[in-house]
Amino acid sequence: MGDLLGVAVLGAGHMGADHIRRLDRVVSGARVAAVADPDAARAKEAATGIEGVTVHTEAEAALDAPGVEAVLIASPGPAHQEALLAAFARGLPVLCEKPMVPDSAGALRILEAEARLGRRLTQIGFMRRYDAGYRRLKALLDDGRLGRPLMLHCVHRNVSSPPGFTSAMLIDSSVSHEIDAARWLLGQELTAVTVRRPRPSSGAPQGLLDPQFVLFETDGGALVDVEIFVNCGFGYQVRCEAVCKAGSARIGDDQGVLVTTGGAAGADVPQDYLVRFADAYDREIQSWVDATRRGLVTGPTVWDGYAASAVAEAGIRALESDTCVPVELAPRPGLYSPAGP
Amino acid sequence: MGDLLGVAVLGAGHMGADHIRRLDRVVSGARVAAVADPDAARAKEAATGIEGVTVHTEAEAALDAPGVEAVLIASPGPAHQEALLAAFARGLPVLCEKPMVPDSAGALRILEAEARLGRRLTQIGFMRRYDAGYRRLKALLDDGRLGRPLMLHCVHRNVSSPPGFTSAMLIDSSVSHEIDAARWLLGQELTAVTVRRPRPSSGAPQGLLDPQFVLFETDGGALVDVEIFVNCGFGYQVRCEAVCKAGSARIGDDQGVLVTTGGAAGADVPQDYLVRFADAYDREIQSWVDATRRGLVTGPTVWDGYAASAVAEAGIRALESDTCVPVELAPRPGLYSPAGP
Amino acid sequence: MGDLLGVAVLGAGHMGADHIRRLDRVVSGARVAAVADPDAARAKEAATGIEGVTVHTEAEAALDAPGVEAVLIASPGPAHQEALLAAFARGLPVLCEKPMVPDSAGALRILEAEARLGRRLTQIGFMRRYDAGYRRLKALLDDGRLGRPLMLHCVHRNVSSPPGFTSAMLIDSSVSHEIDAARWLLGQELTAVTVRRPRPSSGAPQGLLDPQFVLFETDGGALVDVEIFVNCGFGYQVRCEAVCKAGSARIGDDQGVLVTTGGAAGADVPQDYLVRFADAYDREIQSWVDATRRGLVTGPTVWDGYAASAVAEAGIRALESDTCVPVELAPRPGLYSPAGP
Amino acid sequence: MGDLLGVAVLGAGHMGADHIRRLDRVVSGARVAAVADPDAARAKEAATGIEGVTVHTEAEAALDAPGVEAVLIASPGPAHQEALLAAFARGLPVLCEKPMVPDSAGALRILEAEARLGRRLTQIGFMRRYDAGYRRLKALLDDGRLGRPLMLHCVHRNVSSPPGFTSAMLIDSSVSHEIDAARWLLGQELTAVTVRRPRPSSGAPQGLLDPQFVLFETDGGALVDVEIFVNCGFGYQVRCEAVCKAGSARIGDDQGVLVTTGGAAGADVPQDYLVRFADAYDREIQSWVDATRRGLVTGPTVWDGYAASAVAEAGIRALESDTCVPVELAPRPGLYSPAGP
Repeated sequence: MGDLLGVAVLGAGHMGADHIRRLDRVVSGARVAAVADPDAARAKEAATGIEGVTVHTEAEAALDAPGVEAVLIASPGPAHQEALLAAFARGLPVLCEKPMVPDSAGALRILEAEARLGRRLTQIGFMRRYDAGYRRLKALLDDGRLGRPLMLHCVHRNVSSPPGFTSAMLIDSSVSHEIDAARWLLGQELTAVTVRRPRPSSGAPQGLLDPQFVLFETDGGALVDVEIFVNCGFGYQVRCEAVCKAGSARIGDDQGVLVTTGGAAGADVPQDYLVRFADAYDREIQSWVDATRRGLVTGPTVWDGYAASAVAEAGIRALESDTCVPVELAPRPGLYSPAGP
Repeated sequence: MGDLLGVAVLGAGHMGADHIRRLDRVVSGARVAAVADPDAARAKEAATGIEGVTVHTEAEAALDAPGVEAVLIASPGPAHQEALLAAFARGLPVLCEKPMVPDSAGALRILEAEARLGRRLTQIGFMRRYDAGYRRLKALLDDGRLGRPLMLHCVHRNVSSPPGFTSAMLIDSSVSHEIDAARWLLGQELTAVTVRRPRPSSGAPQGLLDPQFVLFETDGGALVDVEIFVNCGFGYQVRCEAVCKAGSARIGDDQGVLVTTGGAAGADVPQDYLVRFADAYDREIQSWVDATRRGLVTGPTVWDGYAASAVAEAGIRALESDTCVPVELAPRPGLYSPAGP
Repeated sequence: MGDLLGVAVLGAGHMGADHIRRLDRVVSGARVAAVADPDAARAKEAATGIEGVTVHTEAEAALDAPGVEAVLIASPGPAHQEALLAAFARGLPVLCEKPMVPDSAGALRILEAEARLGRRLTQIGFMRRYDAGYRRLKALLDDGRLGRPLMLHCVHRNVSSPPGFTSAMLIDSSVSHEIDAARWLLGQELTAVTVRRPRPSSGAPQGLLDPQFVLFETDGGALVDVEIFVNCGFGYQVRCEAVCKAGSARIGDDQGVLVTTGGAAGADVPQDYLVRFADAYDREIQSWVDATRRGLVTGPTVWDGYAASAVAEAGIRALESDTCVPVELAPRPGLYSPAGP
Repeated sequence: MGDLLGVAVLGAGHMGADHIRRLDRVVSGARVAAVADPDAARAKEAATGIEGVTVHTEAEAALDAPGVEAVLIASPGPAHQEALLAAFARGLPVLCEKPMVPDSAGALRILEAEARLGRRLTQIGFMRRYDAGYRRLKALLDDGRLGRPLMLHCVHRNVSSPPGFTSAMLIDSSVSHEIDAARWLLGQELTAVTVRRPRPSSGAPQGLLDPQFVLFETDGGALVDVEIFVNCGFGYQVRCEAVCKAGSARIGDDQGVLVTTGGAAGADVPQDYLVRFADAYDREIQSWVDATRRGLVTGPTVWDGYAASAVAEAGIRALESDTCVPVELAPRPGLYSPAGP
């Protein structure tokens, strides 16, 4: 199969299976060479119908399978650290789904490990950087015509949270997308975080502090506020408005089909992030495959993964303490330049 | 009551009662001095609570009542011709609801009668000229930045038609608003009309040709197309897009409150023209009162009323003959300049 | 002039002159009976062309002028306390422009004075309660179909601030509109306030902390956040989104005329609040005149004026201290029920 | 290269080169096996960097090149007929860009040729059927909740027309997209066509009748109107509104990034169809590759290509004669069912 990039996919759950389908049937230039999941049946099902793939229950076995030239990590967060170190040991380029590593101490170990390698192997799966709307917003902010960004107003709503979702996960699982998007859009680090919350919605599971309102400060003197509401019931909505010195720019209000019927004019709201960001996932994986085949590593870095962990941890402390909590970051290794994908 | 303009209102039906309320309680500088309706009870009810008003069953008696200085004609169309001539005979300024006179022959008699007076007494109630959206669109076309208008795309939808509404009334009662709006926005006369229609909607009463699609040509080389659909069921919608040499401009998509709930994002659609155009009616009557108190006559003229009748009649012939029918207008008397209100 | 309500207008500046014009030429049922301004020339100019009006340099003289039955206070804030007490002494119904009294201690004196009268004489000029969009939003929240309100996201932008505008005035002059609107929309009191701010825009005058981001908590467990940016340069924008248990509702994105030209599709943004809220001012004054003529007092109360002062003062302390500051309100006299206009 | 579909691309101009890039770098499961263009340098340049491709000046040589399993025809329209017959002779599946064949007589010959084969080999490149907006509109019409479609209002605007564009090409090159989209959306044939036109825009080249307004009738009793304006100057805009018995649905007003600056709020308008419909082209080609690898032929048929030609020819006669011209279609061979992709 010559020049198709052979990819080992670790994890065959919801996200892993979607990426396997994407590599097999959507993007150009790659093939799925190996699939690993502790649940052998799940791994096998996800690999069904793919020519030349091998199926494994151990991640390392998949990395060593014939034809594997790169790794896509879509296993649960706690398994990421070991998988990343295994990929580093083999010199394999890797796309690692977010969170890179759930805790900032572990994230720091990955940062140090890649820095010791002296070269980047890893792209982190912050896929909003590949969404057409976010990219247009980024281009607009970068071209300077609106002047310096002063504030970002963000809204992030899910229909409902999965079982076991905790109040802290609103921040480290959901707001982590806005943490990365804000750092990337502004080209700034987040330096402090405050969390306020209304009395929880009666639509949220008992005990879950949902919604929350998170307010970040940046080292460039900007503010970033985020409404996170994971049991809003009415749809999946992601909006972002940048308010700058000379204008504002907003994404996330596209209407698709405007339907007027029965006394109301409106549009359907997508119910799921895989619908809203389907194109972004496609573009992200295509971009990773293209860069990897050319021997390059682009996109969000291990530094971005580490910073997101550290900011999210400060956010959780802010939620628990009801105070403004500063974010403390380790020094940034020279390997990681501020440029985005 | 000194300097308040004393107005006789002819007709105390739906529209007349609304105008009586407006004169009494909304606009400044006028009072209702007399009300006439053949149905004495209806006239009395509409006049309830108004100080110093007299109530009549004969239009002429109302015109001759004490304190009457001006006339607002809101009686059914067939009564307009006689009422207008009675106002002319007394030299009273008049605001006449549309249609000025239902048929173009009668309209021509009014045109000739006012022309013989040698001065304007009459403003015709084409209230879209007073709607904020239409006025902004007119200002935009007049300032020239979009270049010469090439096409107007118009949409006019009602929830349902009143009992007795005929296929011809889609044109001479409903599209007559677009006929005047197009003449006013473009500053051009309509010269020909074609009507096409799909198979009628199953939501329309049996036998009513609804919707229809009406296509006008103008003496300035523009096209005007109108979707008229009077039993659309879903709301009252009026849209107008002007397509010009260097840009387009569209009104009628305002959203009011954007509500997102249950998987859809949207806005309520008004159900009635008295809701959609409430401000326009207020502005129209205030403007008429203000001008009349200063001894002026502004707004749509008898020529505009006549031209609307003549174009609508050609439209009905086009509907019946399925051909393109030319519009033939009598010569325009010098009294009527093309300027709008 | 019989039953027209005779109004004394105190203050003939920008706002006072606009209200004089409105009483004289827009609303129904009132007339300007007296005008007072320390600048006699300004008072005279504002009264030009109005029949039967008297002109004064002293507020009390105007209140005692012949035909005065009600008072509209549009003088600068520091003059309001004395004018209100003078109106109370005469038993005159009064519409008082915001701020009712600039400081909460003075506001409390007015509250106590009207409470001693045992009846309401005063309506405070929070005109957003009369804006069509806000009213539809209020009706939507009140009808309960969206469930309990959890958050209000507010945006308030001005093209530029007038000379002498201070960092505190962003809160007590500008955000005071959102303070009242939030209290009214939610039917809740604001209990605490935090202010965060980015590095000021280079478009703001040197030394002015502009923009600011203000976060309120309420006694009903809701959050209210406000972006206030008074030198945004690009237009006057007021938006409000209510996020509820079962849906969200947003006002302030109306587009008027959608113009497409030269590679962009968009709409003009109004440059001024007198343009954006012209209809709200008309409705407010008409409503006041109508109620007063019927011997009623409706609309925002002295309690609303006092609460706005107290919340704004806490906001200024929050800005200066960079902490969360609680709002402390005096007990609410029985005279003031929570109902809005 | 095992199971990658080997594709011969005929034509290496603007569209051909874009498809070569798409097959090579965007879609999954295909490779470019051969490129043909009479301009050898152009063919070579388009093939640069592609492994295993051969380059030709003759279309038939490309079809016979090693590894060719399917054909994508992107040569100029007059070359299509011969290329299609050559593909038929070799039993090769083919994707043929629109117009299938420029004249309906030639289109009929292709229809008869494929019908003689007794199986479908050909998909026609009507890519709007693959646009996300059109697909949602089609799904909405098909699910029946809006009731029977009565009218389609279509707008199709280009910034400027290429050199040599004729008045007839507004119909057979531009409106042909709406002809196919209307047939597909409604599942009906177009039976008659009328063309009206305003005085041409001064922005159009001398002698070009631009814009035009085209009105179709269908065998299902619907109307379809199309504004075609190929020198509008301000952007590439494609809109479509379906008006049904119980509601309307509109696509084409997406705003992307809403930018507010300098007194205006709006969004950029794309300047080019390759920008607006980039995703649709990707989806179209991916869909064709996927079907072809599974031995299937889906998507728009030769019948669709023929019908578009016949309707466009009637449209040109309607433009020239200023009358309503009926569309006459040959009998539909049993091979072609009405189903879309």
